[in-house]
Amino acid sequence: MQIPAPLERLVEEFSRFPGVGRKTAQRLAFRVLSYTPEEARNFAEAIVRVKEQIRPCSSCFIFTDNDPCDICSSSSRERSQLCVVEQANNVLAIEKSGIFHGLYHVLNGAVSPLDGIGPEQLTVPQLRERIRRENIDELILATNPTVQGEATAMFLQHEFEHQVSRITRLARGLPAGGDLEYVDDVTLSEAFSGRQPF
Amino acid sequence: MQIPAPLERLVEEFSRFPGVGRKTAQRLAFRVLSYTPEEARNFAEAIVRVKEQIRPCSSCFIFTDNDPCDICSSSSRERSQLCVVEQANNVLAIEKSGIFHGLYHVLNGAVSPLDGIGPEQLTVPQLRERIRRENIDELILATNPTVQGEATAMFLQHEFEHQVSRITRLARGLPAGGDLEYVDDVTLSEAFSGRQPF
Repeated sequence: MQIPAPLERLVEEFSRFPGVGRKTAQRLAFRVLSYTPEEARNFAEAIVRVKEQIRPCSSCFIFTDNDPCDICSSSSRERSQLCVVEQANNVLAIEKSGIFHGLYHVLNGAVSPLDGIGPEQLTVPQLRERIRRENIDELILATNPTVQGEATAMFLQHEFEHQVSRITRLARGLPAGGDLEYVDDVTLSEAFSGRQPF
Repeated sequence: MQIPAPLERLVEEFSRFPGVGRKTAQRLAFRVLSYTPEEARNFAEAIVRVKEQIRPCSSCFIFTDNDPCDICSSSSRERSQLCVVEQANNVLAIEKSGIFHGLYHVLNGAVSPLDGIGPEQLTVPQLRERIRRENIDELILATNPTVQGEATAMFLQHEFEHQVSRITRLARGLPAGGDLEYVDDVTLSEAFSGRQPF
């Protein structure tokens, strides 16, 4: 039995999402089949609307429906601290924790020479411009703890060490709620070498 | 930081899918943000098309873009065997295995009195009509191995035992590639009580 073409097309659309395999894509597509025509139209409309109405902030590149975004235009943020992240959704995670009250800069990726992604393919030129124009006391490198994220952080540290007085990166070590038994070797080594007086 | 309203709306649309939590929904919505406007339109169109073009087959209730569906109208299927499943996507799994060459009947659910779902809310009336009209030698009950699926199978067995000469259900036992250590008690008891001569 062949899946009918219109359904197959929707399955393929869902398969394009990260972490969605063929079986999950089928399950999602079947769910759409059980929608009322109005529900399906609403869903389709939400997709088109997002592309029409959401733009990256011209300053920090967070997605927003106002430009500059709520964070960049807020008067209550600490404007001398700039936190650099790879992706806009990383900002959501940090904001949810409530630990940081400065501004952000979204790189839209990480340096990855093998994929042809250098600093100029990211928003590094705009970051350079911000650092020149704005009064940044601390640059917090919050790229991911991966090879690409580390390489990006090292590049940025090198690039801006003479312009910004304080460049920091997020601490590495044991995740809260983790279990030593299941922690990987690299994390464990980092937790040891970065140990703190009790 | 608030997620902008159009993005939040798309996150909510994705959250409605089974097995998709808030975080996954965000990841999916962010992915749509990175689409080109044309890709977003294609995705939206695929959703609307599915609702416009896919209908349940009027005989077996499989989703199809022709009515009757390819299976019901095929001349090479064994028309005296009727396999009853809960959901249309169960048919895909069975067809993929290639083990069955008869016809199907999709119930669109299982009997669940607590949720107010009785046989008349399913496609049991249409199944009754098919059994009366068509020449069915064997009714294979392939409902899920769950409480509701079992109840549905028992109901159907009762209902049709005088009309159909042979009513069978799928074998229960150890799944292929499983490990005795991780098999649950019910499966293990069923594998014992249904053991076969070697």
